[in-house]
Amino acid sequence: MIEKLNKAFSKLPGVGSKTAQRFIYHLLERDRLGGLELAVALTEAMENVKNCEKCRTLTEKAVCDICSNYSRDNSQLCIVETPSDINVIEQSGVYSGKYFVLSGYLSPIDGIGAAELGLDDLEDLLSINKVNEIILATNATIEGEVTAHYIHNLAKKYQIKTTRIAHGIPLGGELEYTDINTIAHALSSRKDYD
Amino acid sequence: MIEKLNKAFSKLPGVGSKTAQRFIYHLLERDRLGGLELAVALTEAMENVKNCEKCRTLTEKAVCDICSNYSRDNSQLCIVETPSDINVIEQSGVYSGKYFVLSGYLSPIDGIGAAELGLDDLEDLLSINKVNEIILATNATIEGEVTAHYIHNLAKKYQIKTTRIAHGIPLGGELEYTDINTIAHALSSRKDYD
Repeated sequence: MIEKLNKAFSKLPGVGSKTAQRFIYHLLERDRLGGLELAVALTEAMENVKNCEKCRTLTEKAVCDICSNYSRDNSQLCIVETPSDINVIEQSGVYSGKYFVLSGYLSPIDGIGAAELGLDDLEDLLSINKVNEIILATNATIEGEVTAHYIHNLAKKYQIKTTRIAHGIPLGGELEYTDINTIAHALSSRKDYD
Repeated sequence: MIEKLNKAFSKLPGVGSKTAQRFIYHLLERDRLGGLELAVALTEAMENVKNCEKCRTLTEKAVCDICSNYSRDNSQLCIVETPSDINVIEQSGVYSGKYFVLSGYLSPIDGIGAAELGLDDLEDLLSINKVNEIILATNATIEGEVTAHYIHNLAKKYQIKTTRIAHGIPLGGELEYTDINTIAHALSSRKDYD
């Protein structure tokens, strides 16, 4: 029973058998109620959390809080790769538009094409909504760039302006400890100092 | 629903809100079945795992596998602080006696006295079983040492020999990176070289 629970915990990202054991003994010795609550919360979430009908983020409602919030700007659409990306952008507090969550990134070699990414849904959204600007916030990886490029082409069809979030040295970051690719990008993307 | 699950995961030792979020998105996006299996395994374990009637380790049986194994040496009794300590000693493969698990260590200031530690059960065990040697494997902390000392006095009553596992520089460890308390202990506990 303990081994079964250990195996189930070990499937979580970054959790090995040792960490799982630590979780299990903690719960069994100090917090059985917490363990049962975790089981209930897990079952509820696994069975009820779905993708938002509009932006495809994870939510227990048909339409998520951001999509159903009328005070948010419908003319801006920020494209992200995962629901957690929405959280960090929201925490930054500078964006008041809507979102669209891709199911990862384009990767034809793994069988992930436009349909699997939900780009058909995105096209439906673009043809209905009055989007003026698409902000591409996919990750700065090769796959993220390819995906951004693909969506840029898609947006052209609808005469929508696309922008890409800036990449460069992180604020508070030191040049010395920044990787060379980021430095190369930051140099070639330098702006006029005004 | 997601926030509730996040809170439940965050109660695990070493898991904060960010790690919990990573667990949750992983389960929701890639492994819902795994999430449900984890919930089932958790409920089963929280409801059915109890303390072994003899050694007090965690087990779903009335008497654990080690206690019910007749090929193990009844004359040796190794005292440990937690069930995980048994696992590491078993993995070392050099011990074939029985165990007794304390519920932590003596700490009168926190209201943990002899009864809370299960020392009454230990005394029952000593008065019934033919134990020749008690191996004290409590941790090398002040509380662990106090507990070891207490059990040593208890064992005297029954004329049982007590031994303490050796403390010193870990095998493969380098002096340079060993803490000064361990070095002090290793020096004062030096043995004849033969």
